Amino acid sequence: MKNSVAGIDYRFTDPKLLQQALTHRSLGARNNERLEFLGDSVLNLVVTSRLYELCPDAQEGDLSRMRARLVRGASLADIASGIGLGKHLNLGEGELKSGGFRRASILADAFEALLGAIFLDGGFKACHQVIAELFDPMIEALPAAEDLKDPKTRLQEWLQGRSRPIPVYHLQREEGADHAKRFYVICRLQDEDAEVESSGSSRRSAEQAAATLVLRQLQEKAGK
Amino acid sequence: MKNSVAGIDYRFTDPKLLQQALTHRSLGARNNERLEFLGDSVLNLVVTSRLYELCPDAQEGDLSRMRARLVRGASLADIASGIGLGKHLNLGEGELKSGGFRRASILADAFEALLGAIFLDGGFKACHQVIAELFDPMIEALPAAEDLKDPKTRLQEWLQGRSRPIPVYHLQREEGADHAKRFYVICRLQDEDAEVESSGSSRRSAEQAAATLVLRQLQEKAGK
Repeated sequence: MKNSVAGIDYRFTDPKLLQQALTHRSLGARNNERLEFLGDSVLNLVVTSRLYELCPDAQEGDLSRMRARLVRGASLADIASGIGLGKHLNLGEGELKSGGFRRASILADAFEALLGAIFLDGGFKACHQVIAELFDPMIEALPAAEDLKDPKTRLQEWLQGRSRPIPVYHLQREEGADHAKRFYVICRLQDEDAEVESSGSSRRSAEQAAATLVLRQLQEKAGK
Repeated sequence: MKNSVAGIDYRFTDPKLLQQALTHRSLGARNNERLEFLGDSVLNLVVTSRLYELCPDAQEGDLSRMRARLVRGASLADIASGIGLGKHLNLGEGELKSGGFRRASILADAFEALLGAIFLDGGFKACHQVIAELFDPMIEALPAAEDLKDPKTRLQEWLQGRSRPIPVYHLQREEGADHAKRFYVICRLQDEDAEVESSGSSRRSAEQAAATLVLRQLQEKAGK
């Protein structure tokens, strides 16, 4: 039974834990779901503590946005692909045939499960080392704090910085069946006779799209 | 400068960290917000790992609901009150006058900040010990897994257990100004000509209230 995977500098004392971390629920009861739940928390703490140390001047809000970017599913799936984790996965036949070893969510989950297994096998320090090695370069490469803010936040701060009232969002209508609904939202500036409509697959995404448009218009006007 | 607080079995090597953990942002820049951000993750991991160990048969979903109950603001504020943390807090004058040392959110935040400070001062093991001592009895006293499920989940599972279609929720209308909005939601059973309306201060809480009513009706009918 193997006791390590390429790309992760850790050797398991108990290789059964590694096996479990690599076993998708499509293969039965002894799968990686509980380990994933544990590993998610391990990853969260180590990334938080690295951000705390490496960004001594960042406020809570910026730290929170940086962490969200680092631990989102897409980032974890990238890491998992990067170290070739897919080829080690134990999948049920259905998942095998449909290419589950390439699916982002399965890869991200297995990566978290692997961290949970390392935590049980080698303790917090071992996890800290493995995670810091992978994530410190990603922390270095993060976009500026401002660029991590979502459009609604950026628009609100832009207006507040000019002592203007905050924008108002109104849900205009929803279209389509429950599983494929489209939301139409208006963003209105309270001190201007201007509103912009946008749509999205959720109310939130429609609001963000509207805020992006409004902010762009405001910045273009201000740049003139 | 004091190096410990009553009720928490830990002595700080660096008492300045303890001071910072007890300092609310109303007192200026060197406050406990960053420590709270860190402490939240520490608490999350230790509680997760205790649940993992103490509940070896619980599935991911149950673990997640148990954790949410244990680390919610109200639970943390209770612990903070229980150890008398309020009287150690450093608050700005405005917060002092308005009784901020009794406010649940300030207490819960300070408790998390204290855990963040212990993590920096004494490492993960010290935190693990402090948190396990406080939370293990709470884990023992948790309600049954079923009772931790929210009403929408309970209703859905009740229906699925009887091979019936899942319920449908529709937002009927919103009333009131943006800061005091009331949401009216209908819950409809797809295989019955029955719907129930309920309201709440959020769309989610309105849906949960409607689900509670529907489930109660179904259970009463089934009990007959």
